[in-house]
Amino acid sequence: MSRLAFLGPRATFTEQALRSMPGTAGAELVPCAGSPAVLAAVRDGTAEAGCVPIENSVEGAVPAVLDGLIADPPLVIVREALLPVRFAVLVRAGTTTADVRTVASHPHAIAQTRGFIAAHLPDATVVSSTSTAEAAAQVARGEFDAAVSAPLAAEQHGLEVLVDDIADNAGAVTRFALVARPGPPPEPTGRDRTSLAATTQNRPGALLGLLTELAVRGIDLTRIESRPIKDRHAEYWFHLDCTGHVAEPAMGEALAALYRRCDRVRFLGSYPRAGNGASHPGPEVPPLPIGGSDAAQFAASQEWLAGLRAGSTA
Amino acid sequence: MSRLAFLGPRATFTEQALRSMPGTAGAELVPCAGSPAVLAAVRDGTAEAGCVPIENSVEGAVPAVLDGLIADPPLVIVREALLPVRFAVLVRAGTTTADVRTVASHPHAIAQTRGFIAAHLPDATVVSSTSTAEAAAQVARGEFDAAVSAPLAAEQHGLEVLVDDIADNAGAVTRFALVARPGPPPEPTGRDRTSLAATTQNRPGALLGLLTELAVRGIDLTRIESRPIKDRHAEYWFHLDCTGHVAEPAMGEALAALYRRCDRVRFLGSYPRAGNGASHPGPEVPPLPIGGSDAAQFAASQEWLAGLRAGSTA
Amino acid sequence: MSRLAFLGPRATFTEQALRSMPGTAGAELVPCAGSPAVLAAVRDGTAEAGCVPIENSVEGAVPAVLDGLIADPPLVIVREALLPVRFAVLVRAGTTTADVRTVASHPHAIAQTRGFIAAHLPDATVVSSTSTAEAAAQVARGEFDAAVSAPLAAEQHGLEVLVDDIADNAGAVTRFALVARPGPPPEPTGRDRTSLAATTQNRPGALLGLLTELAVRGIDLTRIESRPIKDRHAEYWFHLDCTGHVAEPAMGEALAALYRRCDRVRFLGSYPRAGNGASHPGPEVPPLPIGGSDAAQFAASQEWLAGLRAGSTA
Amino acid sequence: MSRLAFLGPRATFTEQALRSMPGTAGAELVPCAGSPAVLAAVRDGTAEAGCVPIENSVEGAVPAVLDGLIADPPLVIVREALLPVRFAVLVRAGTTTADVRTVASHPHAIAQTRGFIAAHLPDATVVSSTSTAEAAAQVARGEFDAAVSAPLAAEQHGLEVLVDDIADNAGAVTRFALVARPGPPPEPTGRDRTSLAATTQNRPGALLGLLTELAVRGIDLTRIESRPIKDRHAEYWFHLDCTGHVAEPAMGEALAALYRRCDRVRFLGSYPRAGNGASHPGPEVPPLPIGGSDAAQFAASQEWLAGLRAGSTA
Repeated sequence: MSRLAFLGPRATFTEQALRSMPGTAGAELVPCAGSPAVLAAVRDGTAEAGCVPIENSVEGAVPAVLDGLIADPPLVIVREALLPVRFAVLVRAGTTTADVRTVASHPHAIAQTRGFIAAHLPDATVVSSTSTAEAAAQVARGEFDAAVSAPLAAEQHGLEVLVDDIADNAGAVTRFALVARPGPPPEPTGRDRTSLAATTQNRPGALLGLLTELAVRGIDLTRIESRPIKDRHAEYWFHLDCTGHVAEPAMGEALAALYRRCDRVRFLGSYPRAGNGASHPGPEVPPLPIGGSDAAQFAASQEWLAGLRAGSTA
Repeated sequence: MSRLAFLGPRATFTEQALRSMPGTAGAELVPCAGSPAVLAAVRDGTAEAGCVPIENSVEGAVPAVLDGLIADPPLVIVREALLPVRFAVLVRAGTTTADVRTVASHPHAIAQTRGFIAAHLPDATVVSSTSTAEAAAQVARGEFDAAVSAPLAAEQHGLEVLVDDIADNAGAVTRFALVARPGPPPEPTGRDRTSLAATTQNRPGALLGLLTELAVRGIDLTRIESRPIKDRHAEYWFHLDCTGHVAEPAMGEALAALYRRCDRVRFLGSYPRAGNGASHPGPEVPPLPIGGSDAAQFAASQEWLAGLRAGSTA
Repeated sequence: MSRLAFLGPRATFTEQALRSMPGTAGAELVPCAGSPAVLAAVRDGTAEAGCVPIENSVEGAVPAVLDGLIADPPLVIVREALLPVRFAVLVRAGTTTADVRTVASHPHAIAQTRGFIAAHLPDATVVSSTSTAEAAAQVARGEFDAAVSAPLAAEQHGLEVLVDDIADNAGAVTRFALVARPGPPPEPTGRDRTSLAATTQNRPGALLGLLTELAVRGIDLTRIESRPIKDRHAEYWFHLDCTGHVAEPAMGEALAALYRRCDRVRFLGSYPRAGNGASHPGPEVPPLPIGGSDAAQFAASQEWLAGLRAGSTA
Repeated sequence: MSRLAFLGPRATFTEQALRSMPGTAGAELVPCAGSPAVLAAVRDGTAEAGCVPIENSVEGAVPAVLDGLIADPPLVIVREALLPVRFAVLVRAGTTTADVRTVASHPHAIAQTRGFIAAHLPDATVVSSTSTAEAAAQVARGEFDAAVSAPLAAEQHGLEVLVDDIADNAGAVTRFALVARPGPPPEPTGRDRTSLAATTQNRPGALLGLLTELAVRGIDLTRIESRPIKDRHAEYWFHLDCTGHVAEPAMGEALAALYRRCDRVRFLGSYPRAGNGASHPGPEVPPLPIGGSDAAQFAASQEWLAGLRAGSTA
């Protein structure tokens, strides 16, 4: 890929996530102002793909991304990355904690480091910036003394890390997606995720029906979010992330079932899951009405069915 | 078919049901003593097919038929018939109601005509016979004055119908099945039934899971019965009758799902439904999580899925 | 209890089951011809309670019992018994196997001992009787040489057991119920069963909804059977046996839910479970959407809810 | 209420939403920097209640609000408001479209008015601000020529509305919540919403089980969102908005069931629903396994159950 858009400015968490994805070395990375601009750049061909936050972001409004993904023309996710949310205090070389009279950052970053600031910079004036990277730029230009930012921004703007890992709650993670125009999905790896969005009739139990289609086929849900449909009162797009790949029989059967059941279904990509985590560590037998999604079992059941149809009941 | 077994003796409701099935003209009809004997005759090749009651029978113990169907080697149902349960008082020519001092029948037939007997034959001694047809034979032999029996038995034994339609509750129907050794199922007619039996792990919700597999694919249940598994405490075979045919995609997918989910599944045949009744008269939209079983929808969803796998999201 | 009806004649399996129930010593046991007659005797006050087979019976047509239980006025089950189906060859004193030229029994008993008869009495003529006890009586009267019957019938008719335990498939069990007119149910024992019958709207998924009400409250199903509703095409009574007692909160909530959901619900009694079998031997955590039925948990959840309503969220 | 916090600065959409809620006249409205600061002000007693966006916000990161609501000590929602997202171009008096060389706004507001800016201000330099209200303030101070902002900000900063209603997609709505420390919930109005959050065991079907508890009791879902639990890999809080009030029997039974089923449940308030919209306009009979939530039906079913327990089956 030669040209990749991302939620800018440079040195945000999104750029860091994009750089962590395989296949980005050598590509031209193009910052865009806002996630909608990233999606637009992919849609109009300005970029081959684009990186946006899709879950739990500090700076990017995730709802905007979800809404943007289901707009037309279609886009699909081809890769994902998880990034720990890590904040550092960045300063110009030589600045000490005692020197810091002003500290700038994005309001959400300030909120997540409130405890540190109260304890260690109690007298500093806190200033809002439009992004953590912009805050670093402002420090580099001498407008403020310190920025709360991703460590990556230090290098970018010639700053130093005064204190690292200052988030009040360690362990937060943001998930980023690389989106592209439709094409054959990445090969299954055995540890894949499939994203989709669907609308259903606005009636009680509609979501239950949708989830049952997944559960009986052993498809596990890793994220769910409802988004109101513009201009249609009390109707929703449900955004779902599931385990599995469209090339697998269980996921294929489930998607086909949603196609029949739902008013609209948008396939948003099958791609390798990021992270080390097995979502179900134990050897647990799936409880019922949860079904199994094992491909060999699907094959065996198809063979049995073919036999039945031909007159054998063995 | 040249040789067809049935639950005898001659002139029972079962023979009447068998004669009502297409393709029985010209066949040799062989009465057997008990439904198990009918199934044995089909299994050992003595008969090409056999007719037994499978639901709501007056004389045949339906549990024995259900247990027999899942024994080995496999058998499948290839046709069914519904027969109104109709009782008549049969007598030798010239007998009047006032002449009837003894009335014979199968105990279940007696139970179902108790009201009539009390009102019209209050002084008659009631005698138990091993079948309604045997009661007619006993009357023909002069052992008793009247038999409560199927009207068919009159012709068979040279008797007359003294009073017809004497059941206390009109409207009872018995369902009969013609079973055969496995072979290609009858062609789908659009109004078919599929019978199957399945065992599940003995855990709460196991049956719920099984029924969910049917419901999400729009398969409607028309009968369900649990039968304890011999020698395995508290485990059950579930006998199910469903709408649809194994050749159809919805039923095929559902059967394949049961194959994966259940410990054992026995396909017991797809065959034309008897009776006039649409089981769902209205134009009702199927509620959720109930799915649709429309074959065209299945085909459309498969096409859409093939597109997804090839890289199209249209 | 002073007067108890049962499915006769004397010395059938049903009498044996009735005698095994606590509280029958000293009662007058009254045989009735057919299960419907037993239920009628209880309804009209002739008997205080009545014993009928309700599952897997050799001689009693279980469908007739199920239909009879939901007729009016209401009846409830107050006790159950499990009886192994055990067949013996009964003869007059001095008769040896070589002497047996005729063997009589109920056709279903003959069917279940077919293997033994073929092997050990290959030349005997097999004769149908209206019950196994009647066969024993016929042998006692000298009409036939041997009867296939419950061992109890030997004592009753002054016969001897020539060979015991001759069923082809050992391990079959029949379940019997003692029914009475409505009254406060027996005290909960911690190992109880509740029987009920319900009708639902004739629409796909109706049964699924009914079972879901039970499953989410941790109620386990031990038997299910559909019975067509007389005169109403394609509509069914579902007969269910469940674990638990109406006095318990989980069962109470489930019954109340069925009352709201179903067209009709008939409570058919809560009573101690017969048999030794824990239906779920393991310490298994109930899978979802299966709920828990633990009474202490219900109490704790009620307390929490009361707190919420009063303004506490702790 | 005398002191109410809100997501500042002044003249944002959040202040506008807060002012639309009954009972805010005469209260002191206190802007806070970021939704977390609003929640903190309520928790520490600085404010009696606080207003934050919880769905579909332009400027407020909704994920931060959801995470903040389930932190300790508990908070509950006591009121909600829906606000159309409406953007206007604000300028100093006398400025015409031709004069606008620079336009400032929050990046998400810019993204949502991209079409208008490209068509009508194609040559203007677009500048990012930390909020739409801050952009208006910057215009008031003469730093930029125009702001894309809520019309409310015009009055606040002495600006004029040059063009109103410039959002590319009309019809977007943001939902705001007024949160307070726990106390008795507002009286039921018959059109209420209940918010809650729950965690379940991380196993397939866990969410399905949770939703089934709601569905069988006729509780309708109006929003669902999963939020990863900090520090616990692949585990989620599910945030749910439902129809109904904790004081009603259906909702009470459902909450008690979740208490038993889920690892943790947080009740987040019952309060009047904003908006005109009946979520289910039609007279539709709820499909099954969806239950009914009618209070009269619940009362009738309780009476029936009490009768059963006392020995009546009528």
